[in-house]
Amino acid sequence: MRILTGLQPSGTLHIGNYFGAMEPAVQLQDKGDAFYFLADYHAMTSMSDATTLRENVQNLAIDFLACGLDPEKATIFRQSDVSAVTELSWILSTVCPMGLLERCHSYKDKIAKGLDANHALFAYPVLMAADILLYDANVVPVGKDQKQHLEVTRDLAIKINDRFGEDTLVVPEAMIKENTAIVPGIDGQKMSKSYGNTIPLVGGKKALRKLIMKIVTDSTPVEDPKPTDNSNVIALYKLFADEAAVQQMIEEHQAGGFGYGHFKQQLFDAYYDHFEHVRTKREELENNLDYVNEVLAKGAEKATAEATKVIDRVRKAVGLR
Amino acid sequence: MRILTGLQPSGTLHIGNYFGAMEPAVQLQDKGDAFYFLADYHAMTSMSDATTLRENVQNLAIDFLACGLDPEKATIFRQSDVSAVTELSWILSTVCPMGLLERCHSYKDKIAKGLDANHALFAYPVLMAADILLYDANVVPVGKDQKQHLEVTRDLAIKINDRFGEDTLVVPEAMIKENTAIVPGIDGQKMSKSYGNTIPLVGGKKALRKLIMKIVTDSTPVEDPKPTDNSNVIALYKLFADEAAVQQMIEEHQAGGFGYGHFKQQLFDAYYDHFEHVRTKREELENNLDYVNEVLAKGAEKATAEATKVIDRVRKAVGLR
Repeated sequence: MRILTGLQPSGTLHIGNYFGAMEPAVQLQDKGDAFYFLADYHAMTSMSDATTLRENVQNLAIDFLACGLDPEKATIFRQSDVSAVTELSWILSTVCPMGLLERCHSYKDKIAKGLDANHALFAYPVLMAADILLYDANVVPVGKDQKQHLEVTRDLAIKINDRFGEDTLVVPEAMIKENTAIVPGIDGQKMSKSYGNTIPLVGGKKALRKLIMKIVTDSTPVEDPKPTDNSNVIALYKLFADEAAVQQMIEEHQAGGFGYGHFKQQLFDAYYDHFEHVRTKREELENNLDYVNEVLAKGAEKATAEATKVIDRVRKAVGLR
Repeated sequence: MRILTGLQPSGTLHIGNYFGAMEPAVQLQDKGDAFYFLADYHAMTSMSDATTLRENVQNLAIDFLACGLDPEKATIFRQSDVSAVTELSWILSTVCPMGLLERCHSYKDKIAKGLDANHALFAYPVLMAADILLYDANVVPVGKDQKQHLEVTRDLAIKINDRFGEDTLVVPEAMIKENTAIVPGIDGQKMSKSYGNTIPLVGGKKALRKLIMKIVTDSTPVEDPKPTDNSNVIALYKLFADEAAVQQMIEEHQAGGFGYGHFKQQLFDAYYDHFEHVRTKREELENNLDYVNEVLAKGAEKATAEATKVIDRVRKAVGLR
């Protein structure tokens, strides 16, 4: 079973990314032949500074390793190290009806959020399909919001196979991540870089504590009982604390007599502890960038070998060879 | 001066292609460093049969050489042998406003003619820009109908340079082919494969004669004077005969007493003679496909060397390295 996941190097990793993508990826690397890539071509759709892109890629590579991706188990590589993905993307474009892309809501959503309406943003689902199909991936773990893109991928693979032969591309299956924790941002909306409500994985202790203290709550006085439904603090605490600790926090809410600062301090301690090993590992890696680059170089080599098999097969099938 | 031209392997070369593209290309190979490519990625936008694509590419390579392109002077190569063009195309897409592509009339025209509205057809001008920019071409000979695409190319190069540094891409100039003969098809419309009115460069003598005899004329009786304006026969004859011969044909039209069959026979003889050397050379090459493949292999090598310089420079500039 070949599993494929990509993550955009779009800046500092936040805990939404961690529970939504990194943690599942770490679990999956034991369950099959995992290919994990740093999606730098994709990042270019919404980023236009070369230095930032370079830094973000390096940071994400460090995050991959610090969070527990293991280069002995998974193939970890940079998307642009295997440029055949853009060639496959062109080939897929030739069978991709414009209507299929026009119906993708991610493009409309991004425009609505104020991103430039550039062609790469529009063509994004085709490149994403190429990312998956270039490695004969069978299984792609996707959040519900990415389900449509995987449908596009399947559609394009089926169209290629109908036209050029059944064995040209492997049609992948979605693995919908049903159990992924919902991670609220400090304002209670879904945690997302575009809402500016994220809590990073690592950072200076003081700054992180300050951020946790900013989590939006209501203004119930200290002595009164506090609502436990829709509490951002409790929702976040559940990610880091065991059941008994969560139960105790709920009871302290109901009892009254504790201020929100008290609960936020508990949340901060649990959160800060949870990422202790990531922080340590990160520091280690930051002082050993040669190792990080070596991991990417080896990953590129392995990914290239797989991609070459597939692109050669596709080229023959479509008549480019 | 680096000159770049591409031609789609879309089937048998017709005399519209010859006078519009091949003859100017042959003349230009003495005037600068010429790069001529067989646009097989582009052909895929409107062709979906692998065998036909392979045959068309081989045929066009033979046509290139039979018409006088000289591999000692020009770099002759297959577009897909330098797949970095699709990578550059993605990079250009990230700075390409959707509006720029939506305004391109070639897409609308092709849809109007009944072609599938696929994404590659829409993205065509971006890949064409990459074709040009990947080789630092200074000069691109274009017909009037391709002028808009070269404007897109210039726009994208300027945007990349504005964002990532002035020396990232060479901004090319159009060389508008003003003097290109207008080549009418057998029905009097512009000769074009999509109108089904073409006269091929080479073929069986009988079939070619039959085709020339089908050229649309009016039905003036043999004995009467015949109109010379808007005469397809005269317009085509001008491509092959010298001034004196053309003058004589005009006078015979005006005098009356000659049927259209007479004029068409004269046209056929001049046309058939004109391509005598192409026919001979073609037969020679068809019996020496190893040589043709060798030309393409050497062209690919030279083109790859140039493209690698440019794509490496671009990758560094945009932060992919």
